[in-house]
Amino acid sequence: MEETFVPFLGIKDDIRGRLMCYKQDWTGGLRAGIRILAPTTYIFFASAIPVISFGEQLERETDGLITSVQTLASTALCGIIHSIVGGQPLLILGVAEPTVLMYTFMYKFAKDRPDVGRKLFLAWTGWVCVWTAFLLFLLAIVGACSIINRFTRVAGELFGMLIAVLFMQQAIKGLVDEFRVPEREDPTALEFTSSWRFGNGMFALVLSLSLLFTALRSRTARSWKYGFGWMRGFIADYGVPLMVLVWTAVSYIPSGSIPKGIPRRLFSPNPWSSGAYENWTVVKEMLELPMPYIFGAFIPATMVTVLYYFDHSVAAQLAQQKEFNLRKPPSFHYDLLLLGILTLICGLLGIPPSNGVIPQSPMHTKSLATLKHQLLRRRLLTAARKSLCQNSSLKQLYGNMQEVYQQMQSPLVYQDQTFQKLKEMKESTFQLASRAGCKDGPVDESVFDVKKEIDDLLPVEVKEQRLSNLLQSVMVGWCVAAMPLLKRIPTSVLWGYFAFMAIESLPGNQFWERILLLFTAPNRRYKVLEDDHATFVETVPFKTITTFTIFQTCYLLVCFGITFIPIAGVLFPLMIMLLVPARQYLLPKFFKATHLRDLDAAEYEESPATIPWNGTTEIEGAMMQSFAQSEEILDEIITRGRGEIKHINSPRTDISAETPTGDVKSTYSFRDSERGFSPQYTETKQEWSPQFARRVSFNTQKAEARLSRLGKVLRESISGKF
Amino acid sequence: MEETFVPFLGIKDDIRGRLMCYKQDWTGGLRAGIRILAPTTYIFFASAIPVISFGEQLERETDGLITSVQTLASTALCGIIHSIVGGQPLLILGVAEPTVLMYTFMYKFAKDRPDVGRKLFLAWTGWVCVWTAFLLFLLAIVGACSIINRFTRVAGELFGMLIAVLFMQQAIKGLVDEFRVPEREDPTALEFTSSWRFGNGMFALVLSLSLLFTALRSRTARSWKYGFGWMRGFIADYGVPLMVLVWTAVSYIPSGSIPKGIPRRLFSPNPWSSGAYENWTVVKEMLELPMPYIFGAFIPATMVTVLYYFDHSVAAQLAQQKEFNLRKPPSFHYDLLLLGILTLICGLLGIPPSNGVIPQSPMHTKSLATLKHQLLRRRLLTAARKSLCQNSSLKQLYGNMQEVYQQMQSPLVYQDQTFQKLKEMKESTFQLASRAGCKDGPVDESVFDVKKEIDDLLPVEVKEQRLSNLLQSVMVGWCVAAMPLLKRIPTSVLWGYFAFMAIESLPGNQFWERILLLFTAPNRRYKVLEDDHATFVETVPFKTITTFTIFQTCYLLVCFGITFIPIAGVLFPLMIMLLVPARQYLLPKFFKATHLRDLDAAEYEESPATIPWNGTTEIEGAMMQSFAQSEEILDEIITRGRGEIKHINSPRTDISAETPTGDVKSTYSFRDSERGFSPQYTETKQEWSPQFARRVSFNTQKAEARLSRLGKVLRESISGKF
Repeated sequence: MEETFVPFLGIKDDIRGRLMCYKQDWTGGLRAGIRILAPTTYIFFASAIPVISFGEQLERETDGLITSVQTLASTALCGIIHSIVGGQPLLILGVAEPTVLMYTFMYKFAKDRPDVGRKLFLAWTGWVCVWTAFLLFLLAIVGACSIINRFTRVAGELFGMLIAVLFMQQAIKGLVDEFRVPEREDPTALEFTSSWRFGNGMFALVLSLSLLFTALRSRTARSWKYGFGWMRGFIADYGVPLMVLVWTAVSYIPSGSIPKGIPRRLFSPNPWSSGAYENWTVVKEMLELPMPYIFGAFIPATMVTVLYYFDHSVAAQLAQQKEFNLRKPPSFHYDLLLLGILTLICGLLGIPPSNGVIPQSPMHTKSLATLKHQLLRRRLLTAARKSLCQNSSLKQLYGNMQEVYQQMQSPLVYQDQTFQKLKEMKESTFQLASRAGCKDGPVDESVFDVKKEIDDLLPVEVKEQRLSNLLQSVMVGWCVAAMPLLKRIPTSVLWGYFAFMAIESLPGNQFWERILLLFTAPNRRYKVLEDDHATFVETVPFKTITTFTIFQTCYLLVCFGITFIPIAGVLFPLMIMLLVPARQYLLPKFFKATHLRDLDAAEYEESPATIPWNGTTEIEGAMMQSFAQSEEILDEIITRGRGEIKHINSPRTDISAETPTGDVKSTYSFRDSERGFSPQYTETKQEWSPQFARRVSFNTQKAEARLSRLGKVLRESISGKF
Repeated sequence: MEETFVPFLGIKDDIRGRLMCYKQDWTGGLRAGIRILAPTTYIFFASAIPVISFGEQLERETDGLITSVQTLASTALCGIIHSIVGGQPLLILGVAEPTVLMYTFMYKFAKDRPDVGRKLFLAWTGWVCVWTAFLLFLLAIVGACSIINRFTRVAGELFGMLIAVLFMQQAIKGLVDEFRVPEREDPTALEFTSSWRFGNGMFALVLSLSLLFTALRSRTARSWKYGFGWMRGFIADYGVPLMVLVWTAVSYIPSGSIPKGIPRRLFSPNPWSSGAYENWTVVKEMLELPMPYIFGAFIPATMVTVLYYFDHSVAAQLAQQKEFNLRKPPSFHYDLLLLGILTLICGLLGIPPSNGVIPQSPMHTKSLATLKHQLLRRRLLTAARKSLCQNSSLKQLYGNMQEVYQQMQSPLVYQDQTFQKLKEMKESTFQLASRAGCKDGPVDESVFDVKKEIDDLLPVEVKEQRLSNLLQSVMVGWCVAAMPLLKRIPTSVLWGYFAFMAIESLPGNQFWERILLLFTAPNRRYKVLEDDHATFVETVPFKTITTFTIFQTCYLLVCFGITFIPIAGVLFPLMIMLLVPARQYLLPKFFKATHLRDLDAAEYEESPATIPWNGTTEIEGAMMQSFAQSEEILDEIITRGRGEIKHINSPRTDISAETPTGDVKSTYSFRDSERGFSPQYTETKQEWSPQFARRVSFNTQKAEARLSRLGKVLRESISGKF
């Protein structure tokens, strides 16, 4: 993205870009069929559960003025609007922890003022929202999001880690509180005697740990050895919501002499109870406030604006990381404008506004990547198997696979690297085949490992559409009506879920992976080299990685420390924004430019190759139906580890295809895309570290072995041994 | 073993065989150095914890007449005697669950008879032991253990599974009881109010599940990615005792208003409290019993005899399974004689006798196999690395490794298959090397994967010695004095440990592996073929495996059901012994002979190749010292999975080298040892199942890849690329 601050230009570009693919956003989603429900429910739970818990927190802090009903309503309303008219549909909106902190602070300020008090508090926050919306409009119009390029991996991942740490802190705090008497409750009640509190706490430990472990396990169900394919697939797709249900059911097992309040469950008023709607009339009360308060609201509004600007942009950025190989354009400016509108609406309705949330937004993209992977894989596998059944030659086989791939990728057929990869593989195999004197003999499936070949081939691709976001927002809306059901969930299951979200957000975060690398035994570090991994492991000396990671960890701890300071705590995003100039001006003084580029690629240092998105529709959904039979044999390991996905760099689509690229920039760009084409054989001009030599030798061995295997297959397929 | 029932012949042979290696039994143990402590503490915990728990159970059932002090004393006494003068030092002795059931039954019978009562109960059990000892003497002298050959895998593994199920049942029952008021306690005490019982139960769940998971995880520490080598090694060796300590410490964290009795802890009288010694004067009271009771004791004695004969023999058999490749001779007859003597001593002392226990005995052998593997591996690795440092050629490298291996294996140098394997590998590599035109160039470590080559090479070998058994028995003896410390262990940690033992005993049990195979998705079964696995997976049709496994499972369930019948329950070993004739006469009518042989090899169907053990001492211990420095780099994955070990068949040493082998028998023997030599390339005359074809193709591919890798290494080592 260019840093042009011409008014309205960014918004116009965003709208133009997203309009081009707007129709496909819907058709693509609809064509994915029933499978879209897997990422939808996954994100629905990740979105609704924290919102409910934040609602409970707000209820305590605002003396029942704002409850889960309000937070759920805001999340659902903003989510539905954003999914329909928003720019980037991968972005998930919700009431977030910073908003809760802001509202808590404002309530503490307002409740004792005679002019505001509890009665006019919502009206006052209405004014705060009005001013915030105004400031957000301004930022959107002048194109403040242009500087998002300067929010490098360092800042984004640090923010992601901080959110993970906060979620974990919440989980631990919640568990500890299970042993204590809740603040607003009657401490003389039976369930709050020390003995029952002990029992409640221990039960909470059992429930939350069980939820955490089973939920984490269920994510890898596809690679389990036992059970039927459909069962494993179902567990992998719906395991997390399922586990919430299972452990909620288990929480009802203890009965008899156990008091009703054990285990503690979610507390929230029913949406139809009296007083639940008092906030809907806020607009009328807004003019009852005295002038100084109306304008005074501008001060908190600036803070909220900084927070939302940063939070929303970083969430959008993390949802669109390079590794996801997104094809559709981003929409930072327009989405910020929309956020302003949404904030205005929420303010006038007297509900806390929603903004883009972490880790839900990147989780959403990740789950859609898995979906797309499944769809693609299924198609290619079917084609390959069909060829094998017809005793096709290797040439025909690759031909058929190529054709199928082309069909699914038509918009990008000439630029796509995977297609290139398929071609490369075909060529190398043919070379070997002709050397072995066989080119047209039939290939046998038992020796040609179709699944493996295809898995090696498939890059990360994301099913970019609007349906999953819309559906999950609607489901969040239903939660308001389903409150009596939600109230059956024990709070301890909630804490387990918080811990699950914290852990689930870690894989793919390079900051986290570098921390793990520090704890890896020196003689095991080469194992990292054997897997798919980021470039820095090869090119940056270990000492530099260590220094950089320790610096980042200290910074994280400082940010985490700040959140404990009562009022200034709200400003922790400012601390992270400070990283942006630090990265640009301070870090280059301590680290070599090449190292820094590999550890923390900044887009202002290299311009992406640009491929305009062209609106031809995808067709996989329509064709998928006919292959549904072979489901059983096709289900195989798709996610690696805990939902991790293979990273193969590919140039990011950018709507601003006209961006001029300077001389230096295009050098980087060339280097980068070269790496993308065949990441394993890249020659870099950097120091030839022993690790790198080892890595190269490892790869050559692997390739040699693979070629030899293929050669053997061909030789044997002629001799008719099988 | 021959089925000759000549009196004393079996005992004589056993004593002769074990005397030959008696000195080495001690020197070998001493030379293993400090590392012997790892299997020792591992087995000490596995031995002591159930004995303490059984003691507690007996205390409840016999109104405090027999306590943990007595069961620990018996286990220590019998263990020490057996480890010094016993035949098979791998066998672990202890007071087992069947003994507890027997004593419970006898107490119920005796306590209400005016002639016996509580006072003379121990004197009466003294007579039972006298008669049992007499019967065991008879069985040992006539050579009843000769028929141990007929106790096939089916019977032994079913018994092992049953014990695992019983341990698991005990764990679950114990956990459920944590929610209830203990029988002998005052139900009005504070800690037994319903609220504290609930808290206690939940705390017990947390502690036992935590112990179970951390203990299981710690066993695989060697393959962890994180942490230092020495740390991982320490955790893998001592993790289980460590976890008992850790979770006992955690159990002290809740304090304040928590009553003293929560969590519940082990209950046992201090050995110095009054009344703890009343049983030591039993001999004097034995003649006070009326005649009918003295002779009537013969009836329970027959039951105890059947039980001990079976239990002791099967435990010894499972500790000496084929897969362990033991080199020293077995000693069934002599050990049964010694068991008689030990039973007599215990009876006269008024303590319950000990016998060979499952799963501790096979666990003992397994842990010693790991130890030996470590010692061997360390030596070979050092030799290989030294050669690499000196830039030796491939020929020199293999020469050096061969020399080292010879040094460690001197007694068996000409018969050993591993040596054969080393030679084979050398030859195939040389062939490739000469084809590539290089034979004497230096080899580089970064490409020649020393660790992998050696791991592929090493067979299972067990450090057979007496020291670990003696030390663990002495440690069990110390427990009597350490009772005040042991009483700090929460009972819930005990239940977790019981579950750990049940799970730990499963890997390596083919019955269990077949059950798992039934639940493996059909399209994943080939994965079993990729790992080390038993022959039956290749040669027996899946349907037959299913039928056989379901039959065995039903039989297991029947046996398990019998243990619930109040008095007849004691006779469940009879049910398992029934399997012996069933296997010999009934099963061959339903299954093909070849299938049955692969699923359940019976020694009476094939005679083992016999290699006399020759008493030359091993020397690894003495030489180990000098290589101690390289410890850090050498620690790598040794155990596979949860302590599983690679199975490579090798003929079992047998002292009766003169056994004549018939025509048919030697055919089987040849076939078997051929398979042993290169298990992956065996040609069998059985049906050519698709799985088998697949397996062969897989292996050929693997071999090809490996050869190509080696060839490449050689080519590159000349071209000096690295």
